[in-house]
Amino acid sequence: MKIIIAPDSFKGSLTAVEAAQAIDKGIKKAFAGAETVLLPIGDGGEGTMETLVAATGGRIQKVTVTGPLQNQVEAAYGVLGDGKTCVVEMASASGLHLVPEGQLSPLTATTYGTGELIRSALDAGFTSFIIGLGGSATNDGGAGMLQALGMRLLDADGRDIGFGGGALNKVEAIDLASFDKRISRSQFTIASDVQNPMIGPEGASHVFGPQKGASPEVVETLDCYMAHWADQIYKKTGTSLHGQPGAGAAGGIGGAFQAFFPSKMKRGVDVVLDYIGLNEELENTDLVLTGEGQVDSQTTFGKTPMGVAERAKDQGVPTIIIAGSVGKGAEALHDFGVVSIHSIVNGPMTLKQAIEGAAELIENAAEQIVRAYFHQSVTQQGRLLV
Amino acid sequence: MKIIIAPDSFKGSLTAVEAAQAIDKGIKKAFAGAETVLLPIGDGGEGTMETLVAATGGRIQKVTVTGPLQNQVEAAYGVLGDGKTCVVEMASASGLHLVPEGQLSPLTATTYGTGELIRSALDAGFTSFIIGLGGSATNDGGAGMLQALGMRLLDADGRDIGFGGGALNKVEAIDLASFDKRISRSQFTIASDVQNPMIGPEGASHVFGPQKGASPEVVETLDCYMAHWADQIYKKTGTSLHGQPGAGAAGGIGGAFQAFFPSKMKRGVDVVLDYIGLNEELENTDLVLTGEGQVDSQTTFGKTPMGVAERAKDQGVPTIIIAGSVGKGAEALHDFGVVSIHSIVNGPMTLKQAIEGAAELIENAAEQIVRAYFHQSVTQQGRLLV
Repeated sequence: MKIIIAPDSFKGSLTAVEAAQAIDKGIKKAFAGAETVLLPIGDGGEGTMETLVAATGGRIQKVTVTGPLQNQVEAAYGVLGDGKTCVVEMASASGLHLVPEGQLSPLTATTYGTGELIRSALDAGFTSFIIGLGGSATNDGGAGMLQALGMRLLDADGRDIGFGGGALNKVEAIDLASFDKRISRSQFTIASDVQNPMIGPEGASHVFGPQKGASPEVVETLDCYMAHWADQIYKKTGTSLHGQPGAGAAGGIGGAFQAFFPSKMKRGVDVVLDYIGLNEELENTDLVLTGEGQVDSQTTFGKTPMGVAERAKDQGVPTIIIAGSVGKGAEALHDFGVVSIHSIVNGPMTLKQAIEGAAELIENAAEQIVRAYFHQSVTQQGRLLV
Repeated sequence: MKIIIAPDSFKGSLTAVEAAQAIDKGIKKAFAGAETVLLPIGDGGEGTMETLVAATGGRIQKVTVTGPLQNQVEAAYGVLGDGKTCVVEMASASGLHLVPEGQLSPLTATTYGTGELIRSALDAGFTSFIIGLGGSATNDGGAGMLQALGMRLLDADGRDIGFGGGALNKVEAIDLASFDKRISRSQFTIASDVQNPMIGPEGASHVFGPQKGASPEVVETLDCYMAHWADQIYKKTGTSLHGQPGAGAAGGIGGAFQAFFPSKMKRGVDVVLDYIGLNEELENTDLVLTGEGQVDSQTTFGKTPMGVAERAKDQGVPTIIIAGSVGKGAEALHDFGVVSIHSIVNGPMTLKQAIEGAAELIENAAEQIVRAYFHQSVTQQGRLLV
């Protein structure tokens, strides 16, 4: 009996690694001799770097950079176990979590630190990059990152425009002379689940601006300035980002990668699953257990359990999902190879209780589920379980 | 694929019949062609009569009797589908639910109505009885029931003692001359899970008196009077009920059956399971689904899921339990043939939400569980589920 344990984190309670360990304990309580493979997974959002580093036996390199509010912050990039691939989560340098409560500043927040992180990794000799988008505090179209990497964004008087989405309307010229030459010799895999364009009602400013502190008026301003920035990029490169899917990711930094970096965008979960070797592990596997805090109709849009189940199905391996909460529409997952979906919650309780008891609840749920799932095959082999 | 659906009620939300129907719907969503047998079950406590009547296709006979407070109440006995067996729940005539809030009266509450119910059934020609104890408002040692059936309980002056546990100290003579002769020609199966004796710290008054409204002082009085009643019974019949297990059931009415009726006591769940024919249905069954509102370490003490699982195990059929809430110690059920135990709750929620959503939650849980349980055998038969 070989079981792959591939959960995401249970947000607010357990990391993916802790969740995987809890599931493993539950399985071993049911079947002490089960062969388990722990593949804790991030979906390419926050936590991806730690996940990939842990899964490949890599390391983490700390770098002091410019935070979204232009103060100094300690960020980090990861180096995978192959020693060659560098993982940069933009949230590490430019994330919402770096902004103290009440100080969100969508007009001035900059991705400069993300550029510094990349530059630091280039200095260390890396040429293969995974960039995780998501969780950003910024709406600057990636301008700050480009500036940190040597690009000059100049106003009508030939002066640098400064920082943040509120400065983008001033760009009248893009000077690539000092733009880091090493970028064109590197490969960038952009992990992002966002398909939004750069501009318009479905664009970065309208959809993600409010959660970064933008009022309706500021959203209009940001969208207008972002359009000017996209115009300038088009003028310089011939690349139109305005309606380009994915260009609106993480405050428009997706567009900056599309226009100026040798890059390809992939669903975050696919980036992760490629690197942790799920496909290889699936061979001779009887069951995959995956899960995360909340599973519902959104889960089919590239979340971890979905990505795991798709690949398992491709190889004919059944998947069972464990979730803190199973919401409306979760049954759609049955169409993607998911045998069944179970909550860890064992009775009426508050969210706080579920979060505090998560490890034990996951362990118990996993035990009961594998007892049920394998009961028939175990009894058929003449080793009566009960 | 044959599945027996044998739940108890989910207290406060669904009757056993409704719970069984919800489970059935869930199973059919997973496997439209599954053969299901619905055997909703009471554990011999309240609701047993309805359960047995429904399970056997019997009928219910209403009778107006004397309630615990000596007002007229509408009670009922059941007639099983065999047309021969009569089911009397004492709570129907003498139950706590017949006492308005704030009017509990443990010193005067009488089981007279239970005796009237039995007399009415004897009048109708029945000689085979199932008596369900539990839920009584009384602590009269069954004296009222005996009085209704013709027994005279006389004080030192040869006058009838009156009603309730507070009158038992006056009994100086038991006159059997008019005691209904038909009783000795009938058979009484007493369904009760209570092993308490009639007298003492573990006796009826001390253990169950408080929930019937007895203050600590009244408990002492009731226990003292009950001891006098047991003394008188011993003097008359040679049967000592004082420490007799089960004599303390339902305010001591258990003892009255033991002393004056041709009776045997059985666990409530066993009485029910015998009559609904679980053993016969278990033949060629692949899985039993049972459950109730709360499953925990108490469940091993003769509750429905336990009784069902024991019998299923005897015939080599696996049992899975579905519960509103899975509490501490539930894992002890694994030793009694229970494959796995699952909560119906699908995320953090209040008890009220779980109760209100119970039908849908049970349906979903049953669907997911049988999807997991039968997945391997279904795929092995070449009909790939997912």
